[in-house]
Amino acid sequence: MSYTELKREVFEANMELNRRNLVVYTWGNVSQIDRAKGVIAIKPSGVAYEVMTVDDIVVVDLENKIVEGKMRPSSDTKTHTHLYRHFETLGCPEIGGVTHTHSTYATAWAQTQQAIPCYGTTHADYAYGEIPCTAVMSDEQIERDYEEETGVQITDCFKDRSPVEVPMVIVAGHAPFTWGKNGADAVYHAVILEEIARMAYLTKTLQQNTPPLKQGIVDKHYLRKHGKNAYYGQK
Amino acid sequence: MSYTELKREVFEANMELNRRNLVVYTWGNVSQIDRAKGVIAIKPSGVAYEVMTVDDIVVVDLENKIVEGKMRPSSDTKTHTHLYRHFETLGCPEIGGVTHTHSTYATAWAQTQQAIPCYGTTHADYAYGEIPCTAVMSDEQIERDYEEETGVQITDCFKDRSPVEVPMVIVAGHAPFTWGKNGADAVYHAVILEEIARMAYLTKTLQQNTPPLKQGIVDKHYLRKHGKNAYYGQK
Amino acid sequence: MSYTELKREVFEANMELNRRNLVVYTWGNVSQIDRAKGVIAIKPSGVAYEVMTVDDIVVVDLENKIVEGKMRPSSDTKTHTHLYRHFETLGCPEIGGVTHTHSTYATAWAQTQQAIPCYGTTHADYAYGEIPCTAVMSDEQIERDYEEETGVQITDCFKDRSPVEVPMVIVAGHAPFTWGKNGADAVYHAVILEEIARMAYLTKTLQQNTPPLKQGIVDKHYLRKHGKNAYYGQK
Amino acid sequence: MSYTELKREVFEANMELNRRNLVVYTWGNVSQIDRAKGVIAIKPSGVAYEVMTVDDIVVVDLENKIVEGKMRPSSDTKTHTHLYRHFETLGCPEIGGVTHTHSTYATAWAQTQQAIPCYGTTHADYAYGEIPCTAVMSDEQIERDYEEETGVQITDCFKDRSPVEVPMVIVAGHAPFTWGKNGADAVYHAVILEEIARMAYLTKTLQQNTPPLKQGIVDKHYLRKHGKNAYYGQK
Repeated sequence: MSYTELKREVFEANMELNRRNLVVYTWGNVSQIDRAKGVIAIKPSGVAYEVMTVDDIVVVDLENKIVEGKMRPSSDTKTHTHLYRHFETLGCPEIGGVTHTHSTYATAWAQTQQAIPCYGTTHADYAYGEIPCTAVMSDEQIERDYEEETGVQITDCFKDRSPVEVPMVIVAGHAPFTWGKNGADAVYHAVILEEIARMAYLTKTLQQNTPPLKQGIVDKHYLRKHGKNAYYGQK
Repeated sequence: MSYTELKREVFEANMELNRRNLVVYTWGNVSQIDRAKGVIAIKPSGVAYEVMTVDDIVVVDLENKIVEGKMRPSSDTKTHTHLYRHFETLGCPEIGGVTHTHSTYATAWAQTQQAIPCYGTTHADYAYGEIPCTAVMSDEQIERDYEEETGVQITDCFKDRSPVEVPMVIVAGHAPFTWGKNGADAVYHAVILEEIARMAYLTKTLQQNTPPLKQGIVDKHYLRKHGKNAYYGQK
Repeated sequence: MSYTELKREVFEANMELNRRNLVVYTWGNVSQIDRAKGVIAIKPSGVAYEVMTVDDIVVVDLENKIVEGKMRPSSDTKTHTHLYRHFETLGCPEIGGVTHTHSTYATAWAQTQQAIPCYGTTHADYAYGEIPCTAVMSDEQIERDYEEETGVQITDCFKDRSPVEVPMVIVAGHAPFTWGKNGADAVYHAVILEEIARMAYLTKTLQQNTPPLKQGIVDKHYLRKHGKNAYYGQK
Repeated sequence: MSYTELKREVFEANMELNRRNLVVYTWGNVSQIDRAKGVIAIKPSGVAYEVMTVDDIVVVDLENKIVEGKMRPSSDTKTHTHLYRHFETLGCPEIGGVTHTHSTYATAWAQTQQAIPCYGTTHADYAYGEIPCTAVMSDEQIERDYEEETGVQITDCFKDRSPVEVPMVIVAGHAPFTWGKNGADAVYHAVILEEIARMAYLTKTLQQNTPPLKQGIVDKHYLRKHGKNAYYGQK
């Protein structure tokens, strides 16, 4: 059983993350799942984008055991596998890729430990409502299994919301995670989140009490791009 | 009847928008009118700049019917055609190009739902007085025809002002539109608006109560570049 | 009498201004004086950097009459010649170049109509004390001769300070001017002013009541780079 | 006794500083020590990166006497040698490289004369707790030996903290210094400090009273990258 194509796609998605200027040194990683085979491919830990090759990509199963690859997987691997397992539980098995970055503006919002309000249509085009910020992790969670619990903190934000409708989150005191139908789509959402976070920063510092966009326009913009009545793009 | 030259100019103007770093992915579009033929050419919806060709440009009439082209036109097409129809009504048929972007600083001002004050000569060189922000759209308007009504919101800002003297606007909760004598000129104003918006952001966050530039200097700067006594540039 | 070398140096200085990302489109100009011949060379008005050639550079005398060149000189020419005439009166004939830009952060400070405080050694290395902001121009001045009076507003800031020790100023509601021993040196100071202005913006917005740097360190830094006891650099 | 390899490494580290956009003109310098030979190699003073060659690198002993090289060493040399002498005294002889920059955000924090709080895991991954800001230098120190005393101000911040655990500092009213196991590692920390400082600026201006990251997460992140139980990277 070979993972050549999966590894190539994950390699390309990671390189795109770097090309889009979302990472400093090795701060970021992308994974993608093959649900049929029950594995994900992910960036190796701490390897520079300049020297990384397709062969360095690591394949692990959903219990984080290495299936193929000579390197250690990303230290955030347990967060990725937690998300893939729970997206399925949440009824969203179509989510096939996950990205983690420390992109500047999204991380600043995460550091203030508050959700990113939906201030405008740029946001509403991609995420239906505010981008949630997780709770701060308890000491018990940190001791138990920090990376696994980071995943728990994230999925706890999606008890009443669909991760397909809001394909991004910021982890309090840490940084963002985004997802999509595959690794490339997760990276696409990481780029968009950073721009949304930057616009929201400018909006809030320009006028502290800016209200969120009215619901009618949020609905209109989200639904003209998503769902069965969408009319944006070719198709 | 061929639209080759019109489509080529619109293609080039759209590519320039991308080169000037005003768009993320597909967020932006430029159109240009041929008033004699009663048509506009516009970017296709959701097509990436990297793969777009001249043949992808869509030609529509002023009632938004496709005249030439195999792709769907921009989802904002109705806003563009509304503007061309009403610029003529407002006595400004010389406006021949329209641009829409989500450029970062102009969009942040739009999200705060306030006009951009004229703080300095950089602004006064290109726009005579503050850059208006539309009203927030009512639920009735959203349901009626969102894109057409976006145009209505814009032209409502120019009942007492000339769209030639202020070739730009920000739509509340959304993003900017700019225009000019053709598509290239509309893009030129989109670049300038973004820089004006950035300077105004810095000015306001540095000193919240900064007054607008005194009228005498606004007049001087606007008129040294525009009108029959202008003395800027070659000619 | 030929101005070949003077024009070449002014051309190169203008191109450097563009390369350093201090200008949008045609917003900026550099001049340089040949005091022996009583002329300055300056950028032509409104000509794009991409198409400008050495032959487009205009030579004018200190009363603004064109001596050589087929194009109109910069619309700011009278400000430049005013400065050269008055720098000599102020005892600084060694100032041989002048630059005008609308660089973003320096312009934002100008728009707030306040001097840039000397917050740190980066500033003190190049300008001895705060960077002055001119008074806002009176209506009488605007009507009399706007560009000449812009020069008056600037030289009024240097009645008690040396323009050699503070080779830069911001014009209230407008933008910065810088100078140096020639055009290239004036551009060098324009780059440095923009970075100083950016750092000062960040400093003030981070902590509104930040005090200026203590005088003892200002003296130390300015004097280790300037004057007869300087010990920075090779020499 | 030849210093070829030491000079080459110092040259490369200085060029990397420039490539990473941390310097404007000549504002920055990197040194590296050869403890066995009792010398450091450092950038020459005021030489542009574009023209600098390996042969321009200056070798001095720990009392600042030139051992090899035709140029003057950086005017900050005494600060560097002070640090190398005292890092050994502080029990950290493994620190082998020092970098000084005026990078924008770190300098802005230095100008506000306050430490950079540890707001998130990006910070905690590289520096254990807040990044200290030195005291403002007294007039006596300035007169005594400004550059040597800058080193004193820095080492005074590390009486109760390890310079290995916090490989960076900001000097009040001045700018940052960073260090690492060699010159390249010191530059690596300079890049990271600038990004940490930028995120902290955004965090504080977005929400003035943002609390520091809780200690449990600081410990977790610092220790998963550093020390004997670290599990980040390939090792």
